[in-house]
Amino acid sequence: MSGTNHNAADGWQGPGPVFVLVRPQMGENIGAAARGMWNFGLDRLRLTNPRDGWPNPRAVAMSSGAAQVIDNVNVYETTDEAIADLNYIYATTARSRDLTKKVFTPQDAMADAHARIARGERVGVLFGPERAGLENADVVPASALISVPVNPSFASLNLAQCVLLMAYEWSRSSQAALPHPDSKAPPAKAHEVAMLLQKLDTRLEAAGYFWPDQKVASKRENLRNLISRLELTDADVRTLHGIFNSLADGSPARK
Amino acid sequence: MSGTNHNAADGWQGPGPVFVLVRPQMGENIGAAARGMWNFGLDRLRLTNPRDGWPNPRAVAMSSGAAQVIDNVNVYETTDEAIADLNYIYATTARSRDLTKKVFTPQDAMADAHARIARGERVGVLFGPERAGLENADVVPASALISVPVNPSFASLNLAQCVLLMAYEWSRSSQAALPHPDSKAPPAKAHEVAMLLQKLDTRLEAAGYFWPDQKVASKRENLRNLISRLELTDADVRTLHGIFNSLADGSPARK
Repeated sequence: MSGTNHNAADGWQGPGPVFVLVRPQMGENIGAAARGMWNFGLDRLRLTNPRDGWPNPRAVAMSSGAAQVIDNVNVYETTDEAIADLNYIYATTARSRDLTKKVFTPQDAMADAHARIARGERVGVLFGPERAGLENADVVPASALISVPVNPSFASLNLAQCVLLMAYEWSRSSQAALPHPDSKAPPAKAHEVAMLLQKLDTRLEAAGYFWPDQKVASKRENLRNLISRLELTDADVRTLHGIFNSLADGSPARK
Repeated sequence: MSGTNHNAADGWQGPGPVFVLVRPQMGENIGAAARGMWNFGLDRLRLTNPRDGWPNPRAVAMSSGAAQVIDNVNVYETTDEAIADLNYIYATTARSRDLTKKVFTPQDAMADAHARIARGERVGVLFGPERAGLENADVVPASALISVPVNPSFASLNLAQCVLLMAYEWSRSSQAALPHPDSKAPPAKAHEVAMLLQKLDTRLEAAGYFWPDQKVASKRENLRNLISRLELTDADVRTLHGIFNSLADGSPARK
């Protein structure tokens, strides 16, 4: 049972999205998630800060022999690290969020994922912890949301069930979908977007933007949400670096 | 916890198929099946000869409060009794059978079930026991088969997972004709985006960004293309005005 691995670039082989369990609590659910994934041919599972560490014997027991998934799990300290090499990230969510992001059904999300992967993007799906789901801080860096249309009076979808439905929809759309050729420029990776945000944050901090105190957190979240949603290309990221540098280094008149 | 009831005609109220678990072994799986059904608004669960009898406290515990399903379970001695009042019966099966029956995907089966129920038929879905699935004797009286297209090298779909997928497909086909609500905030008008661009251009001009001369035109075009592509909302435009102002007006330290 090896496979803890902090290099996000490792182990990228065939097609298919990465599934990221964010702070999962019960090993049983990790195992059931692995089983559900492998039932539909998906094998790239990442964990962010699992409560009971990794490897986890309960996960192995519940995976019913889905060693292809369990043996290749990668573990990360933070969600940011877990998604750093991905181009497009969907966050599964039961609650509606006050975030301006595209909301997909599972079906539409996995069809979209197919099209993205066909043109060479790396795609991931975030799943929140059992009790409370994803926190806003996990959702903000995502490119879009996936909302499972459950019974409004009983919206208690188990973590492994949610994983199963996404894997099922992935498989279903694999059998239906044709690749959509698209001439879009290559999208930036999440860590490049994160670095751009860091630069902007530093510049704005120096410029006194984060003010008043009680609004600092929401301003930061708002900013990160905005930048994450824009589907920036590599070229966009370079352009924005230039703009931010230029604006912040000031006009010749003020120097 | 009442609801054991041997009269199949009782308790037929709203629309939706009956799910029949044939000789289920573990109470946990019955509970998880009930939960999965109720997640997608289905509440008619029947059991044929459950190994550990009924009611079953483990089923209640695993149902996570899906009392609407658990409290109304009907129990039967045989599969024939459990399906006696139904007009059309689908049998879920992992293995191929030497039976001449129509084979549906889950999606097509639930769409078919919708059409049948809409014209007044009573429809049921049979699920086999955990270890071995349905016996041929259970499958023979069924009208058709449902085959879940799982990974051929790992066809170990758990009973409750199979129930969940059918309930999900039922719900999905119920919603197929409904529009998808979209939480997206109102997009900015083109003239608001143009004003933002104008502001940015002025700020960048003052900061010496448009340089060298032979690249000025392409830099402007690039910038406009970038900003126009972002599908900015009104709120985004306000945020970006604030950011550009703040960056360009400079840090207090430089003032």
